[in-house]
Amino acid sequence: MKCLVKLASVAIALTPFAVVASDPTPGTSHGIAYPIGWQNWSTIAVSHRTDNKTIRAVLGNDTAIKAARSGETNPWPDGAIIGKVVWKDTELKDWKTATAPGKFVHAEFMFKDSNKYSDTYNWGWARWVGLDQKPFQKGSQVCTTCHTPVKNRDWVFTDPASLP
Amino acid sequence: MKCLVKLASVAIALTPFAVVASDPTPGTSHGIAYPIGWQNWSTIAVSHRTDNKTIRAVLGNDTAIKAARSGETNPWPDGAIIGKVVWKDTELKDWKTATAPGKFVHAEFMFKDSNKYSDTYNWGWARWVGLDQKPFQKGSQVCTTCHTPVKNRDWVFTDPASLP
Repeated sequence: MKCLVKLASVAIALTPFAVVASDPTPGTSHGIAYPIGWQNWSTIAVSHRTDNKTIRAVLGNDTAIKAARSGETNPWPDGAIIGKVVWKDTELKDWKTATAPGKFVHAEFMFKDSNKYSDTYNWGWARWVGLDQKPFQKGSQVCTTCHTPVKNRDWVFTDPASLP
Repeated sequence: MKCLVKLASVAIALTPFAVVASDPTPGTSHGIAYPIGWQNWSTIAVSHRTDNKTIRAVLGNDTAIKAARSGETNPWPDGAIIGKVVWKDTELKDWKTATAPGKFVHAEFMFKDSNKYSDTYNWGWARWVGLDQKPFQKGSQVCTTCHTPVKNRDWVFTDPASLP
């Protein structure tokens, strides 16, 4: 019995460590540090894609939001980070002609720094995949190839949504 | 000339007032005060409707975000405000199978207060229409009628989107 009590004590003592250890900051993607707290950034826009059946929120850090609200987005200012949060597009049970976020796919980010990222069109490109936020490491060219149609828009697809 | 100078002075003196007067806080909707600053609230979810061709961001005040993140949403806590920002769904010029926000339609809100709004299912229902944020005054029943299919989900269609 004494032994059991001791084991229980050890388990309780370890719990705080276990909780912390199960939720570490994800590693870098393309050498870029994880932008902690992006889940609570403000909204720049939303989007919907029928080609890969996804629905997205486009968020920004404070610098990006300030630029979006003032229309200073071509170019976006250094320090801006734009985040695109992607979910599988899923039918809403209670409103059949609506869709909403299903499975979380990934969160991907563009980090504007015209000195640091001058080799990749003044943006750092990063992505963290799945709920475990596994760093994407397949190379920035995967991102820039897709973004080439908007190279004259500072490489950004998103127009900040009209807001009152 | 003296008269012209005087008129110019009056115009300059009036400018600050004119700027303020052109952007006042919108009036109440169904007696509910405008939730200043909602444009920078964090995201709960997004949605897309084919019936009325709109795309939406679902935002929350701090109380709503805390509830959404912790899964305490049936019922939502008193003090929670959920905002739905609605735009016309518009084809993205540079990615033909994507849509994004076009014309801003309205922003509508549910204010949870089980004492104040006990007559309308514990929520206050309000909407401000267009970029000039004209208060909607057609009655809460317009909102609650539409939300009846989710009366067992505390009258809320939205499931907080899955986030890492």
